[in-house]
Amino acid sequence: MKKVIILRHGESVWNKENRFTGWMDVELSPLGREEAVRCGRVLKTEGFEFDLAFTSMLKRAIHTLDAVLSEVNTPWLPVEKSWRLNERHYGSLTGLNKAETAAKHGDEQVKIWRRSYATPPPPLAKDSREHPSRDRRYKDVPRELLPDSEALKQTVERVLPYWNERLAPLIKADQRLVIAAHGNSIRALLKHLEGLSEEAILEVNIPTAVPLEVVLSDDMKFVSKRYLGDPDEIAKATHAVANQAKVQTGRAT
Amino acid sequence: MKKVIILRHGESVWNKENRFTGWMDVELSPLGREEAVRCGRVLKTEGFEFDLAFTSMLKRAIHTLDAVLSEVNTPWLPVEKSWRLNERHYGSLTGLNKAETAAKHGDEQVKIWRRSYATPPPPLAKDSREHPSRDRRYKDVPRELLPDSEALKQTVERVLPYWNERLAPLIKADQRLVIAAHGNSIRALLKHLEGLSEEAILEVNIPTAVPLEVVLSDDMKFVSKRYLGDPDEIAKATHAVANQAKVQTGRAT
Repeated sequence: MKKVIILRHGESVWNKENRFTGWMDVELSPLGREEAVRCGRVLKTEGFEFDLAFTSMLKRAIHTLDAVLSEVNTPWLPVEKSWRLNERHYGSLTGLNKAETAAKHGDEQVKIWRRSYATPPPPLAKDSREHPSRDRRYKDVPRELLPDSEALKQTVERVLPYWNERLAPLIKADQRLVIAAHGNSIRALLKHLEGLSEEAILEVNIPTAVPLEVVLSDDMKFVSKRYLGDPDEIAKATHAVANQAKVQTGRAT
Repeated sequence: MKKVIILRHGESVWNKENRFTGWMDVELSPLGREEAVRCGRVLKTEGFEFDLAFTSMLKRAIHTLDAVLSEVNTPWLPVEKSWRLNERHYGSLTGLNKAETAAKHGDEQVKIWRRSYATPPPPLAKDSREHPSRDRRYKDVPRELLPDSEALKQTVERVLPYWNERLAPLIKADQRLVIAAHGNSIRALLKHLEGLSEEAILEVNIPTAVPLEVVLSDDMKFVSKRYLGDPDEIAKATHAVANQAKVQTGRAT
């Protein structure tokens, strides 16, 4: 049996503003930092140790991982940061909140972008200041791989090569990995691992900063998953995320 | 011309207790965290950007670097952590304070260990719980390279291969490096770069969490160095470190 721990970052400062965050590099909120510390404590209490750590290029995930590694007392672990673990890219919706988006594109259209597996929002203009090709952190990524906009389908397509070529071989070789990522990059992993349909994965809500233990067989087939920590708190956190998604069209992630 | 930024970590929680810290993995004090943030702000104000970051395997340096990278808004930079940038290993003195050390070995002996370039303190017992060979973070380091005890000479001998083989080639290739390390691993670098004698390097006091800019020629010869920030504050910080070294035999570093 193989195990991997996957975490969604804690609450970000844009969470309450109900904006599409995506690749915008916003910081954890004070609550988000607390959540990250609690997440690390749960892993420590349950006796988890890691050999390697992975995260995205976005600070809300990086700082969640930093807090977790400090709590489990291994801040010295090698950390690899990859753009392939970034949140879904929301295209020209990036930075907009629900009201702005509905005003600009209409409620129905926004619902399609939010619920469609394959239809991405309008792309970010190539000459936009926010375009990834103008951000030096992505300078080593081939230009044609950098997204202008993504539906979950496109997120899956860029996350999977990283799983298959980088993460899975390490897990297969018994390296104990912790992966700090985002709601939709984690959905991408779970869709693949659990073999979920396009409809089913959209119903999966990942609570923030709760460690998810995924158990795989020796030939890397999905066996089981469970969230670690107090079951009541986890239920509450998952419920909160699911409710937000229902109430707020175009919820920030 | 090439430039590199070198930082000593902020104050640790053992600083006030006047203990030999060395490879003991103690956390930054609240003041040390503030120092690290200020250090990052100075670099930001002066417009520094980095391509790669390096630190030791010890959390006081790792967390100093984390704070600096957050302040300069590039927490996504690749960070490499190496045991070769660790503080000098104080052997069996590790964890002892001045009073304990003087009581155990006598004032004169302690002065020799503190001021001698080449004579290390008595080694840590191989079966000690604190021995690096029993710490899983060093499991990939060949056993014969892990120190039992070091004078500055031995610290120089393990830092220099890392400079020559890893850091210098990157700087020569115009990569902009920030290196967060420790009083004696920084002394090791400066001794080499400035061509200082064994006596002269022992008189060099590195203030905590003040960015040191070292300028090198294109063929990697030392040109100049300067501490960045408010000159009065730097003078005060350097004086404080120098005074501590004078007053406190066996000052913790």
